Amino acid sequence: MQKIAVLGAGSWGTALSIVLADNGHDVRLWTHRSEQAKEINTFHTNETYLQVQLPMKLKAYDKLEEAVEDVSAIVIVVPTKAVDDVCRKLNSLVHHQPVIIHATKGIEPESLKRVSQLISEEMDAYSYEDIVVLSGPSHAEEVGKRQPTTVTVSSMNEENAAFAQDLFINESFRVYTSTDMVGIELGGALKNIIALGAGISDGLGYGDNAKSALITRGLAEITRLGASLGANPITFLGLPGVGDLIVTCTSTHSRNWRAGNMLGQGWKLDDVLEQMGMAVEGVRTTKAASQFAHQQQIEMPITNGLYQVLFEDKAPGDVVDQLMNRHKREEMDDLSGFIRTDCSD
Amino acid sequence: MQKIAVLGAGSWGTALSIVLADNGHDVRLWTHRSEQAKEINTFHTNETYLQVQLPMKLKAYDKLEEAVEDVSAIVIVVPTKAVDDVCRKLNSLVHHQPVIIHATKGIEPESLKRVSQLISEEMDAYSYEDIVVLSGPSHAEEVGKRQPTTVTVSSMNEENAAFAQDLFINESFRVYTSTDMVGIELGGALKNIIALGAGISDGLGYGDNAKSALITRGLAEITRLGASLGANPITFLGLPGVGDLIVTCTSTHSRNWRAGNMLGQGWKLDDVLEQMGMAVEGVRTTKAASQFAHQQQIEMPITNGLYQVLFEDKAPGDVVDQLMNRHKREEMDDLSGFIRTDCSD
Repeated sequence: MQKIAVLGAGSWGTALSIVLADNGHDVRLWTHRSEQAKEINTFHTNETYLQVQLPMKLKAYDKLEEAVEDVSAIVIVVPTKAVDDVCRKLNSLVHHQPVIIHATKGIEPESLKRVSQLISEEMDAYSYEDIVVLSGPSHAEEVGKRQPTTVTVSSMNEENAAFAQDLFINESFRVYTSTDMVGIELGGALKNIIALGAGISDGLGYGDNAKSALITRGLAEITRLGASLGANPITFLGLPGVGDLIVTCTSTHSRNWRAGNMLGQGWKLDDVLEQMGMAVEGVRTTKAASQFAHQQQIEMPITNGLYQVLFEDKAPGDVVDQLMNRHKREEMDDLSGFIRTDCSD
Repeated sequence: MQKIAVLGAGSWGTALSIVLADNGHDVRLWTHRSEQAKEINTFHTNETYLQVQLPMKLKAYDKLEEAVEDVSAIVIVVPTKAVDDVCRKLNSLVHHQPVIIHATKGIEPESLKRVSQLISEEMDAYSYEDIVVLSGPSHAEEVGKRQPTTVTVSSMNEENAAFAQDLFINESFRVYTSTDMVGIELGGALKNIIALGAGISDGLGYGDNAKSALITRGLAEITRLGASLGANPITFLGLPGVGDLIVTCTSTHSRNWRAGNMLGQGWKLDDVLEQMGMAVEGVRTTKAASQFAHQQQIEMPITNGLYQVLFEDKAPGDVVDQLMNRHKREEMDDLSGFIRTDCSD
């Protein structure tokens, strides 16, 4: 039994807290909203974010210093844009070196910094190699209902990764480890670009054939970008890549898919974002990836097409037509360039 | 403009005939049922298989010898079990060496022979290297409505592949080429195993998390089997692998998914097959693949689990639990063994 703080009481933070409580740990779920903490402690519900009864032993805290006191692990599940601020506070509060695990699927625009890098930059006692990332195909709603789910944890520090695996693993929540931390973090973030595209395709009224082609070719291009940033391309074929793409692109639960769907139906980006009322990570990620790809001369036709829809007011239908009518070519020349299958030459 | 025979007037044969007719070709759609030919020629419909109006220039034939006379290409779209018989007839009828293209997604049980092999064994003037395969993520219904669709053609004979690409390609039907004929044929066939599994997961009431994990890990194991049979593993990451898996596993249109779904709900295999009233290719393919994997000592836990459900009366829920509770391990060790990303060692 470990004492663990989970920071961020949205749907994913709440679901992960349930897994940890089910495993017998003493879980402290932190939220900056005292009303929400009160609801969790009084009624054992977190109605706005996850419609399940919470375990009695799950306690909510609205004071960060109380939540993290003496814990052996801190799980960070706040939105990407809040990571800096939370970690600055942690830096002055935490001096006993708990393992830090993050489950935030984002990336910093412009710099393309991963969340582990953002964390380690704010926390003096940690290098990014110490941080653990947890990612994979997982609707929080299903984890809350104890439906079978499979995720991957990764850290440059293998001991920390194994510790995180042991904390979370149980009969319905399977946890694999991977040594490719860069790939796990980038896979979770970049897949949101393709989810936007899948939503646009559906919003335009195209069918499963078009969407699966877009997902497949989107996978190739985010793999290419990931590899150029140091990820192992094989990671994109696993749960944090293909798996997460399937869950995100074929479910109406996904915020990024929903935003894309509205764009495909003719909404303007500003109106979509206003209507959603919360950050759509894929929009910022598309901008960052498209600019980076341009600088580095990495071929990303789908991402660039999305950029034109999002920021240059191009009609989604025209972009899809443009993607369909690219010149004839061999299908996998773009992937086979960096995934070597034959080492004889 | 070419004269082309399409053999098999099911939904996929009809959809491919529409593409060819749209491209201005003289298309002869063969069916052994004269009533069906009459419906197509009189009303320009094929109501049982595809609910769209057919192009006027699409003509149906119920006599094979008339359909194939003087054609420059023959497209074979009959079920796998009918391939032998049709090709035996073609062997005695066809002496002018038209290009043979097949779009049949199956495999011969026991032998694991691919459709191109079955064709060439019956036709004296063809080696399997001459045959072209067309495969990819494609619901016939969507192709019939001219919704954007992307497929791959492949042949050991690159001239034949290019010819097939030119016949089919148009604005809404994009055709890529690949040199990995073995991978294209096996991807189309083996994905039906995973579609059965995805259906079972849904039938058991599990969610998207479980299904996407199953698809992702299923992809790894059919890739492993494919590679052992000579396919390029990269092919499984493209349209004929990932793409086709997504279309087949996330759509209720798929016959294999539907059969799996009934099994998950507690139906017995015999009752499912009787209820479906048509061949479910994935059942035979699971048997063949499981036996072959056992002989060759290839690790295929999902396929073997399905075999137990289909042929050993094991409860689907027990098999899923068993798959979930395999020992902890690194996620991608099984794929990274044969996809080399680093050639330095």
